[in-house]
Amino acid sequence: MQDFLAELAGIVGAAHVLTGADVERFAKDASGHYHAAPLAVVRPGSVAEVSAVVTAAGRAGVPVVPISGNTGIVGGTMTEGGLMLSVERLNRIRELRPGARVAVVEAGVVLDRLHEAAAAHDLYFPLWFGARGSAMIGGVLSTNAGGSNVLRYGSTRALCLGLEVVLADGRVLNLMSELHKDNSGYDLKQMFIGAEGTLGVITAAVMKLVPAPRAHATACIAMDRLGPALELLNRCQKASGGLVEAFEFMPDTYMRQLRKVRPDLGLPFETIPPVTIMIELGATAPALAEAGPDGSVALATILEDALGEMLEAGLITDAVFARTEAQRRAMWARREAAAEITYARMPAIDTDIAMPLDAVETFLARFHDRLPAIDAGAETFTVAHLGDGNLHFTVFPTDGSPEMHDRVVEAIEDVVQDLRGTFSAEHGVGLSKKNSMARRKDPVALDVMRAVKTALDPTNLMNPGKIIP
Amino acid sequence: MQDFLAELAGIVGAAHVLTGADVERFAKDASGHYHAAPLAVVRPGSVAEVSAVVTAAGRAGVPVVPISGNTGIVGGTMTEGGLMLSVERLNRIRELRPGARVAVVEAGVVLDRLHEAAAAHDLYFPLWFGARGSAMIGGVLSTNAGGSNVLRYGSTRALCLGLEVVLADGRVLNLMSELHKDNSGYDLKQMFIGAEGTLGVITAAVMKLVPAPRAHATACIAMDRLGPALELLNRCQKASGGLVEAFEFMPDTYMRQLRKVRPDLGLPFETIPPVTIMIELGATAPALAEAGPDGSVALATILEDALGEMLEAGLITDAVFARTEAQRRAMWARREAAAEITYARMPAIDTDIAMPLDAVETFLARFHDRLPAIDAGAETFTVAHLGDGNLHFTVFPTDGSPEMHDRVVEAIEDVVQDLRGTFSAEHGVGLSKKNSMARRKDPVALDVMRAVKTALDPTNLMNPGKIIP
Repeated sequence: MQDFLAELAGIVGAAHVLTGADVERFAKDASGHYHAAPLAVVRPGSVAEVSAVVTAAGRAGVPVVPISGNTGIVGGTMTEGGLMLSVERLNRIRELRPGARVAVVEAGVVLDRLHEAAAAHDLYFPLWFGARGSAMIGGVLSTNAGGSNVLRYGSTRALCLGLEVVLADGRVLNLMSELHKDNSGYDLKQMFIGAEGTLGVITAAVMKLVPAPRAHATACIAMDRLGPALELLNRCQKASGGLVEAFEFMPDTYMRQLRKVRPDLGLPFETIPPVTIMIELGATAPALAEAGPDGSVALATILEDALGEMLEAGLITDAVFARTEAQRRAMWARREAAAEITYARMPAIDTDIAMPLDAVETFLARFHDRLPAIDAGAETFTVAHLGDGNLHFTVFPTDGSPEMHDRVVEAIEDVVQDLRGTFSAEHGVGLSKKNSMARRKDPVALDVMRAVKTALDPTNLMNPGKIIP
Repeated sequence: MQDFLAELAGIVGAAHVLTGADVERFAKDASGHYHAAPLAVVRPGSVAEVSAVVTAAGRAGVPVVPISGNTGIVGGTMTEGGLMLSVERLNRIRELRPGARVAVVEAGVVLDRLHEAAAAHDLYFPLWFGARGSAMIGGVLSTNAGGSNVLRYGSTRALCLGLEVVLADGRVLNLMSELHKDNSGYDLKQMFIGAEGTLGVITAAVMKLVPAPRAHATACIAMDRLGPALELLNRCQKASGGLVEAFEFMPDTYMRQLRKVRPDLGLPFETIPPVTIMIELGATAPALAEAGPDGSVALATILEDALGEMLEAGLITDAVFARTEAQRRAMWARREAAAEITYARMPAIDTDIAMPLDAVETFLARFHDRLPAIDAGAETFTVAHLGDGNLHFTVFPTDGSPEMHDRVVEAIEDVVQDLRGTFSAEHGVGLSKKNSMARRKDPVALDVMRAVKTALDPTNLMNPGKIIP
């Protein structure tokens, strides 16, 4: 292995082959559930170096595990003895063309850097989640990351026009198109998006930008129960012409945990209601986004009128509006404390599930009926991208054993599968959901995944042991 | 082969195994360039029958070529001696859930039937092109069809949530999810969308629906040159908040051909200008779509104001607005006569190219510079989804030889490739662009396509000889 490390040093420079204590920041994952023991971390500085590293690893028979911002929580970058390939030095925004609304970015560009670069041109890169300050483009593409704006703009896949990938055999696959229509054969980039590095190393991409909303209307809504939430969403979509950018659900259990762990963030309502929904609309058209002669902004009026009607109809019990940008940020801070307040309590069994939009209330009712028989003292906790049917659903068991973990997860998955949902909505599969893949995924689909993996990576070099059971 | 045909008759019924004159409507393609000679056309009535047919064909070693509405023009359904598998009897709309905005449709559902079913619920299936009265879901998915609304809603791929596919080995791959977020492994449906039946037979899909626009604002715009068109588009997008649904380009050559072939359709301007752009905006929000106290609709005012400013600035020379639905339909009829007026003149060399949005004028200038050296008497003709950078660019040569065809296509492709465009935007590859695939596609990409094809269809049973050179 010393020969191999020396070969890597020859490719990227000795300073960029990390071992020992230097690998710790890559080896420790964000969830705290996983800890890797890589042979080394290599940090190539160009696509050519990535290609040379992968080729050398293939010759040496050392697995290659790509890693970017290390914000994943499913163990997708773990390895025992493999080579971690960090893309953090591939961090150039190669091009940003505001007229064509595209950005050409390398895999190591941090999400917030792209947000800032776009904002300088009055544009927006509409991928938005808590870890945006450290998550990188390579990782968000490899996991097809979602977040809070999927409802309006789609997930990472929908934002990607072109891709550059280093294949398992070291060759560079150049799919760096910015075209809005291209049917010249199979759309190969789709295979690598969401493949968690098992088919190749994403090194760069062409991403879509959208006009930055010129105005937001943001509110927190109190409800007695979740049932009417879909009607609330559909009414707000109808009234605004589809301008809802976020529709987030935080139950009373969430708010109580927030009050305990982050009392500094405050609460939207004096008394915590059973259901809190945070809604945000965004508009670019001056007719909706600019203040009219009477000083009111049409977008805000649309939201206030819609919620006013719902209040009169008794479907919601209260609503507070963000009147200033500071108030808006305070609302988002409560929502974005989710990861922090989840992991503040252990043991925690956290899941990332999605179901049809009209099935969420049924899921919660059915699972809460089942839970006492599994663990009578367990408590639950949810935060949801409700507009996508996506719940980050957590159970705090009284017993932190692996057996309890499996029983709880199986029970959640039973209900989810009955409702035609998925056990993996946006965080990916990695190691943490491989059992679920084996139990829940259509066996024909698993066979096709294996066929694709074998076709593109016959020696199982790329991130082996992930995703596919 | 008689045994094989008898076996098929046993699966689907003798009435649904067509030979002789009965195959003619499948064998003749819409472009007139191709004529197939299939062994037979089989019309299964269920997914189970599709599976049994594909399995039987695999045993007999007879290639399977899926066909749906037969509106393709690239030879994608041609076969000499293979079995055409028509999905026209798989024509159920299995489910349409307005609240969740999804339709579950079989491959043989004609596009306009889905339009009508959605309209009954005030919803819209936003895939729109001339052949919508006969094109079927299976075909639009297999070719990732585009059309006039891609600018706003994306191509077929963007509208598909779930897929059901019969694989080359006869197994049914069930990916019929309606989830907006699902990262449980590779997104396999993406491989089959746009694969033109080379990886399996698409039998059903879950498609997204969107709220039907409550108002349209439609206009034809006259310009002296194409250059300012992108600025026109961006200004209209900015003013409306991204509500442009169609942005179509018809040069003087198009209008003259239209006047000759379809004089009944009239012309938007008395004198044909060098450039005619047809623009359409659509709105669902009442604030934009409903008449205000003064009787005006904000959406129409937005378009009129934007075009008024452009007129004053001298960037456009004239504009006419559709004041009634009949006027709007008349504008669309001129645009949708494109296929008819193209094929009214022969020989015609028609292409389907796309390029970055800001490169279209450069393409036209560069190619028109080159053309005289190739064929001094040739004329050209274009109709373009300009908002997608997608041109249906036709050359009428003085010489109908295959050699001239190749020279012209090569010259077009040279310019397109220089501009980082594609030789195949939305019609697919089929047979007609296989040479282009060989000449223009990245060799690494071709290798990966071959690897995928071999992995999923090792005996090359499914639509052999298409797409991949």
